[in-house]
Amino acid sequence: MIRLSLYIYRNPILHFVSSPISTSLSLLTLSLQFEVQMSFAKKEYEFLKEIGLGPHNLGCYASGVWRGNGPVITSINPSNNQAIAEVTEASTEDYEEGMKACFEAAKTWMQVSTSSNTIPAPKRGEIVRQIGDALRAKLQQLGRLVSLEMGKILAEGIGEVQEIIDMCDFAVGLSRQLNGSIIPSERPNHMMLEMWNPLGIVGVITAFNFPCAVLGWNACLALVCGDCVVWKGAPTTPLITIAMTKIVAGVLEKNNLPGAIFTSFCGGAEIGQAIAKDTRIPLVSFTGSSKVGLMVQKTVNERFGKCLLELSGNNAIIVMDDADIQLAARSVLFAAVGTAGQRCTTCRRLLLHESIYQRVLDQLLEVYKQVKIGDPLLSGTLLGPLHTRAARENFEKGIEIIKSQALAVSKNGGKILTGGSAIESEGNFVQPTIVEISPNADVVKEELFAPVLYVMKFQTLKEAIEINNSVPQGLSSSMFTHKPEVIFKWIG
Amino acid sequence: MIRLSLYIYRNPILHFVSSPISTSLSLLTLSLQFEVQMSFAKKEYEFLKEIGLGPHNLGCYASGVWRGNGPVITSINPSNNQAIAEVTEASTEDYEEGMKACFEAAKTWMQVSTSSNTIPAPKRGEIVRQIGDALRAKLQQLGRLVSLEMGKILAEGIGEVQEIIDMCDFAVGLSRQLNGSIIPSERPNHMMLEMWNPLGIVGVITAFNFPCAVLGWNACLALVCGDCVVWKGAPTTPLITIAMTKIVAGVLEKNNLPGAIFTSFCGGAEIGQAIAKDTRIPLVSFTGSSKVGLMVQKTVNERFGKCLLELSGNNAIIVMDDADIQLAARSVLFAAVGTAGQRCTTCRRLLLHESIYQRVLDQLLEVYKQVKIGDPLLSGTLLGPLHTRAARENFEKGIEIIKSQALAVSKNGGKILTGGSAIESEGNFVQPTIVEISPNADVVKEELFAPVLYVMKFQTLKEAIEINNSVPQGLSSSMFTHKPEVIFKWIG
Amino acid sequence: MIRLSLYIYRNPILHFVSSPISTSLSLLTLSLQFEVQMSFAKKEYEFLKEIGLGPHNLGCYASGVWRGNGPVITSINPSNNQAIAEVTEASTEDYEEGMKACFEAAKTWMQVSTSSNTIPAPKRGEIVRQIGDALRAKLQQLGRLVSLEMGKILAEGIGEVQEIIDMCDFAVGLSRQLNGSIIPSERPNHMMLEMWNPLGIVGVITAFNFPCAVLGWNACLALVCGDCVVWKGAPTTPLITIAMTKIVAGVLEKNNLPGAIFTSFCGGAEIGQAIAKDTRIPLVSFTGSSKVGLMVQKTVNERFGKCLLELSGNNAIIVMDDADIQLAARSVLFAAVGTAGQRCTTCRRLLLHESIYQRVLDQLLEVYKQVKIGDPLLSGTLLGPLHTRAARENFEKGIEIIKSQALAVSKNGGKILTGGSAIESEGNFVQPTIVEISPNADVVKEELFAPVLYVMKFQTLKEAIEINNSVPQGLSSSMFTHKPEVIFKWIG
Amino acid sequence: MIRLSLYIYRNPILHFVSSPISTSLSLLTLSLQFEVQMSFAKKEYEFLKEIGLGPHNLGCYASGVWRGNGPVITSINPSNNQAIAEVTEASTEDYEEGMKACFEAAKTWMQVSTSSNTIPAPKRGEIVRQIGDALRAKLQQLGRLVSLEMGKILAEGIGEVQEIIDMCDFAVGLSRQLNGSIIPSERPNHMMLEMWNPLGIVGVITAFNFPCAVLGWNACLALVCGDCVVWKGAPTTPLITIAMTKIVAGVLEKNNLPGAIFTSFCGGAEIGQAIAKDTRIPLVSFTGSSKVGLMVQKTVNERFGKCLLELSGNNAIIVMDDADIQLAARSVLFAAVGTAGQRCTTCRRLLLHESIYQRVLDQLLEVYKQVKIGDPLLSGTLLGPLHTRAARENFEKGIEIIKSQALAVSKNGGKILTGGSAIESEGNFVQPTIVEISPNADVVKEELFAPVLYVMKFQTLKEAIEINNSVPQGLSSSMFTHKPEVIFKWIG
Repeated sequence: MIRLSLYIYRNPILHFVSSPISTSLSLLTLSLQFEVQMSFAKKEYEFLKEIGLGPHNLGCYASGVWRGNGPVITSINPSNNQAIAEVTEASTEDYEEGMKACFEAAKTWMQVSTSSNTIPAPKRGEIVRQIGDALRAKLQQLGRLVSLEMGKILAEGIGEVQEIIDMCDFAVGLSRQLNGSIIPSERPNHMMLEMWNPLGIVGVITAFNFPCAVLGWNACLALVCGDCVVWKGAPTTPLITIAMTKIVAGVLEKNNLPGAIFTSFCGGAEIGQAIAKDTRIPLVSFTGSSKVGLMVQKTVNERFGKCLLELSGNNAIIVMDDADIQLAARSVLFAAVGTAGQRCTTCRRLLLHESIYQRVLDQLLEVYKQVKIGDPLLSGTLLGPLHTRAARENFEKGIEIIKSQALAVSKNGGKILTGGSAIESEGNFVQPTIVEISPNADVVKEELFAPVLYVMKFQTLKEAIEINNSVPQGLSSSMFTHKPEVIFKWIG
Repeated sequence: MIRLSLYIYRNPILHFVSSPISTSLSLLTLSLQFEVQMSFAKKEYEFLKEIGLGPHNLGCYASGVWRGNGPVITSINPSNNQAIAEVTEASTEDYEEGMKACFEAAKTWMQVSTSSNTIPAPKRGEIVRQIGDALRAKLQQLGRLVSLEMGKILAEGIGEVQEIIDMCDFAVGLSRQLNGSIIPSERPNHMMLEMWNPLGIVGVITAFNFPCAVLGWNACLALVCGDCVVWKGAPTTPLITIAMTKIVAGVLEKNNLPGAIFTSFCGGAEIGQAIAKDTRIPLVSFTGSSKVGLMVQKTVNERFGKCLLELSGNNAIIVMDDADIQLAARSVLFAAVGTAGQRCTTCRRLLLHESIYQRVLDQLLEVYKQVKIGDPLLSGTLLGPLHTRAARENFEKGIEIIKSQALAVSKNGGKILTGGSAIESEGNFVQPTIVEISPNADVVKEELFAPVLYVMKFQTLKEAIEINNSVPQGLSSSMFTHKPEVIFKWIG
Repeated sequence: MIRLSLYIYRNPILHFVSSPISTSLSLLTLSLQFEVQMSFAKKEYEFLKEIGLGPHNLGCYASGVWRGNGPVITSINPSNNQAIAEVTEASTEDYEEGMKACFEAAKTWMQVSTSSNTIPAPKRGEIVRQIGDALRAKLQQLGRLVSLEMGKILAEGIGEVQEIIDMCDFAVGLSRQLNGSIIPSERPNHMMLEMWNPLGIVGVITAFNFPCAVLGWNACLALVCGDCVVWKGAPTTPLITIAMTKIVAGVLEKNNLPGAIFTSFCGGAEIGQAIAKDTRIPLVSFTGSSKVGLMVQKTVNERFGKCLLELSGNNAIIVMDDADIQLAARSVLFAAVGTAGQRCTTCRRLLLHESIYQRVLDQLLEVYKQVKIGDPLLSGTLLGPLHTRAARENFEKGIEIIKSQALAVSKNGGKILTGGSAIESEGNFVQPTIVEISPNADVVKEELFAPVLYVMKFQTLKEAIEINNSVPQGLSSSMFTHKPEVIFKWIG
Repeated sequence: MIRLSLYIYRNPILHFVSSPISTSLSLLTLSLQFEVQMSFAKKEYEFLKEIGLGPHNLGCYASGVWRGNGPVITSINPSNNQAIAEVTEASTEDYEEGMKACFEAAKTWMQVSTSSNTIPAPKRGEIVRQIGDALRAKLQQLGRLVSLEMGKILAEGIGEVQEIIDMCDFAVGLSRQLNGSIIPSERPNHMMLEMWNPLGIVGVITAFNFPCAVLGWNACLALVCGDCVVWKGAPTTPLITIAMTKIVAGVLEKNNLPGAIFTSFCGGAEIGQAIAKDTRIPLVSFTGSSKVGLMVQKTVNERFGKCLLELSGNNAIIVMDDADIQLAARSVLFAAVGTAGQRCTTCRRLLLHESIYQRVLDQLLEVYKQVKIGDPLLSGTLLGPLHTRAARENFEKGIEIIKSQALAVSKNGGKILTGGSAIESEGNFVQPTIVEISPNADVVKEELFAPVLYVMKFQTLKEAIEINNSVPQGLSSSMFTHKPEVIFKWIG
């Protein structure tokens, strides 16, 4: 059985940075080194100091100490492709040092140490509560950093940090509910006891598009459960990884706890693989592409570890003939264009009932025209840049493929209705795009991680559900209707 | 917080038989003694033997033995007011003997006895499973008896017994889920254990209109929890009480368990009061009128016992302007006329949106005309008799009051649209009745336990909810609509 | 079934202040009026200003406004019977004004208002989180006030406030877990929905001995559930009631919510009765004596309301022959002498296995000698004063009765082993007392709300359990043993 | 977090039969064909007819029809290596036919079919209840067959079938508890719904040692959840697979349901691989060796399916110095010798505190001497044969390795204390064996699937836990002690 929700908020896709790219980033670093200091000196970057960041940062929090002996990389602002600051990533030795300390710290945190200095679940909850409070105190700055480094608009940046704060509150409550069971046996005078025991260490590998929320979902629960956390953030959002880690580290230190309880590495595929292989990490939570996810899972399973995977999506919105069309149009805009189409839950396919097809489309084209594109930190901006120059190029390649396929299926009326181009600028901006296309076109089955929406027509609910289920990636879907019988049919 | 369901199936009203009535019943007994044997000899009563009943029955299962030293009463067929069979009720001494044994049996059943002969929860579940199977084997006969003695139609009689069977299945599953908790404390090296312990004995006082289902709800759960059950059925349905008890007793005996685990008394107010006062019974479940329920609660609370009360209802159905009118009309018929209006969940008030008022009413008058009234055991019958001659008289008094109030509020258009009379016959039959009346009429606030439906008009949902909540008895309500926003507003 | 815990922390006894006492308090007020200003000026009372208290205080927070038109009473320091400050209690009119506003506020807080300005459960959780933070900021001052006005030692005063803070954290987590259910029906194409709906208003009547923790247990849960709270604190701890209310009111005001969501009255029996009778309050939580509790329950039930009662206790500690005697002796001291014996969970009866009887007793007499009695605010004090002069007199009367019964049962060896006298001083101090007595002595069945411990001997576990269960008030019991089979027998 | 139980009953190891062995079985078939009919004619095999078995059986229940077009194999009695009966296994075509029908049947069973003929969860529960009853009616015969074909003693054979019956009862209760959730959102006027949806089809691959109980654990839950079941039993226990399937099929047919809801294949690795690869089967439950389990998991994951694995174990019993030695010795005997050491939960390592080392060992050697070895169907037998001749050879090889390693670690005192030989007979009998050995010996880290117990000594609890955790397979462990502090330390 699977639990099917009307509203699932899940998550994103990681284009796992393979070594060639991180090499090119290293090269980039050299040429941009001067620039780094320049940018950082800018007035609008001053807030970074308030969350512990400088022009040069150590990218590894291991054994409660900041260090970094790996490659030096540069964090890039996707709005202008200029450097923000430099980060020294973790080397293999940093990783090993960090994991040794983390493994030791787990004995304290799991409460298996024989000393009286153990930490019961409600006390762990208190630490997570303090983390939530520390995040609250820096909500604006952290949200601003997410927006600056990842490229999503400020409201979304702040929203992402708020999500971790909410997770902290939730986890604090859970910390007093981790009850075991006493089970009456069918044998007289016999009793069975069951208790929850921590796994020890949870590895968390996150992606660029939700560079801190996904850490929050995993870490808040892991910490109250008595598990230490080893985090590898995305290689292109190292400043967020460092800033978040400083918040957590500050709380651990204030409470005289080993910093190694929360161990954090900036790094690329090498560190990711080290985590996947490490027998000290019984559970690895991975967020990213299906391809890399499968590889991680295979590696982890081979050593009898477990995986939580959050992979690709190719999500549809179905609009029935009785829907509130204005509400639907507004929602589709947010779902297809938000985060510049770089959410795993981005709406990629819009299924419209034939009787309202043209009306919804007209409204949508109207609202797409009004989308303000630009610096995500500016108030009023609705669409920021794609995260990297490579993503922008990928968008352009995708549009070429769409055009070629649209021709091939021309009897199905495939064509670009709005958008379809990258925008000339220093940043990675592209136009929000709507494509009219047949559900059978090959390109529709793939995931173009950009604000491109495929629109298609259907006649019956049955047909709509079949189209919805005709792609391999299914993650979330939505439907607009007023009919309870359709709603309940929809959710099962 | 209260838990509010879209579909609650709750229960009924007991006109707790006060002593004058039971005296008159005793007198009746004498004059009908010959008749008793006659009736029982009839061919259509032969099935009673298959469930252990004869022309004269002992009404008390105490300490695993059938006995009876109280008044001899006669069970009456409400279709013709002829006697079915005689029952000797429990005397005060019978009660005391039975309770002594039950209190002893509780030590075994609760698994507190120090002997190795204790009974863990899953084993108690096995007993309840066998009870379910024993009921299944006699489903037709028991359902027939419910129909014969209570007066509800056969499908409802069988349905009532099926409900207990379903409860048995459910309780068997529960018997393996009665887990305690191990709770991590905030103190290091400290653990809290919590376990469910049986109360000991649960008293169950049930009413005539669901003469066995209500026992099932209470007893199935009580038994798997490790509680003994003391049951007093309604004084006018003693044969059902005896037949049900024989089923349970048979299973206990087959398993070499003390029969006193399930102790059962036919009797009236005296036995009811003895249960309410008895400090050996920490929990009393009472089903019946609000008036008697409050008295029982007061008596039980004074000795620091607890009560489960299932009392009156004055239920409304709201039909919105977008409703499926045919479905609504059919449902109202079943809700208002089923069990001859003698359910606690009987629909007594029908609130119609003004725009569909006349259409619903017309349909309803049409279906009311087709209601087949008669012997509840005959196939095709939809409306059987009221349970007693007194109930029929009560119906006639109620109609008089309605008429007088309808006049008084005549500007609100109060009038009898169909029905309104008792039917001349040997039995307690009355016409299904629809009254058009203002929601403010006094009589609408009271509960006439008969198939009388008050119809009223509203303009807005807000107004409908206000009318719905304007009576003191609220138990269940329903609404017919297609709009999800109205549904969710409705359930909170 | 009842859930039986190894560690239950429940609560206290209220000597519901009847009118004669509150009259005498009023008289006292007059003569002490000058003193009031004097005391308040003292340096050690300065912290009261930090939590919003002055020499004269309004005792009623109604409709978001501080008011008070009832009698003026004086809060007394039980260590010296000098006045701390004055409070004007609520009049009947204050009550009615407050309840009207509370009833209106409930519509907003329950989220039934049709306006868009409704408050979902997680948002209510956020308010409770802020209350927790506001309490954290004043933990020391509030704890100090509890100690000053109630008389318990400072560590206990602070602990009591901490308990509310913990409840807030727990309730925040719950605010995201108040899920309803979707239940598959056995009918095809049929679905049942169940949702939790707030009751509206919860009345909370608390006692002097836990003047704020009990409010916390009730209010934190009620608030996240969507219920408004009406609080009547104990008449002899009005300053705590006011200070706590100011904390909550501050949070509501900061969030632009109606203050009437939390309505609070200083007052006596008259306000208590008004709450019990008020049909706007579907649930009343009462803490106090069994006698008054039963009266409250009866009043509430008569109007079909529900009650949560926390009443008397007469708790035992059983020490088995294999127990850790030092641990047992220390625990008994804390359980019998803590809060000066004025907890509902105070240990009143100590059951010692005959083989270790004398050893435990010797250790206990030794530690009793070292108990430091005095000002509860001073570091090192273990035993503060009884709460009122009347309680001290009650202690003396109780000792007289014990002595007389000890004589009567002299063959059982009844005698005062240590303590037994009030201490000559301005305050309400008494000696911690140990009495050797038969379990059958009448006085043992009663609850003397003071640090008096009855010691008795047993031979077998069975005998110990019988003695444990031989009093009518059972609330909590403890056992000291190392044997798992005894532990599991003990908890069921 | 993992849930750690004091009593886990998990399961077994499958030596996944590779093709060479099944070839040799086919050869065996030819030479034994006459024998087959002979054996089956024996009086003691008559009971097989009562559960639908004959001398030649079709091994595939597909689309509600019995068929079989694969190799013909012979079921062998491990007590004498004579044939019991023949079975025709499933061919690849049989598999594909069966899966097509199963996939269609899933639409009905999952209740997604648009027809009104859908089956809600409680109705599915009713089917499972009937399966439980049908098993109850054939408990003796099925248990006897398990004993005959697998080789475990009769009490264990019957116990295994009883376990499925208990699972049925449990699952019936669950069928009314598969509730979804209605979750209040933090957005005003917003609600989230979550519902459980069936996966569709659950594949179940089971092993020889629990040839039917493991099916029961998986199938009972899958069926009430709305999932169809595809079962491949062990190739050496085909008669049990067929007999169990006939029970289930009979219930489906009686209820006019598609037989394809429960699809069953006798077969070897080819069918196992087909299941692992089949995208129509989203969840595969596999029981067997770690090696094969990892391969199955890899195959299933590659197609984004999920796995439940029940693999190897290398379980320890720790006996502390305060243990009840008689109880411990009896328990170790049952744990090490029961099912001839072929349970995944078989105790393979006995850790004795040095202070009671010799006493436990002496008792154990005494009880080992009294173990009655022989025909598992005979009353009094405690140890039946190993399941196959190959297993017996494997035992002999293992003993050789032990002897060689015992020499190598001779300073640690390794030696065979009792047993160590196969028994000359027609069957696969071996002696129950105790080996004194160092915890560091290599052979201790491996799993010899036979009644061989390694005994070792420890000084402290810490040391015992380290030894316990020093093997890679950990599944279940036990400890004998009276000290609650040790118990709670032990379970976390």
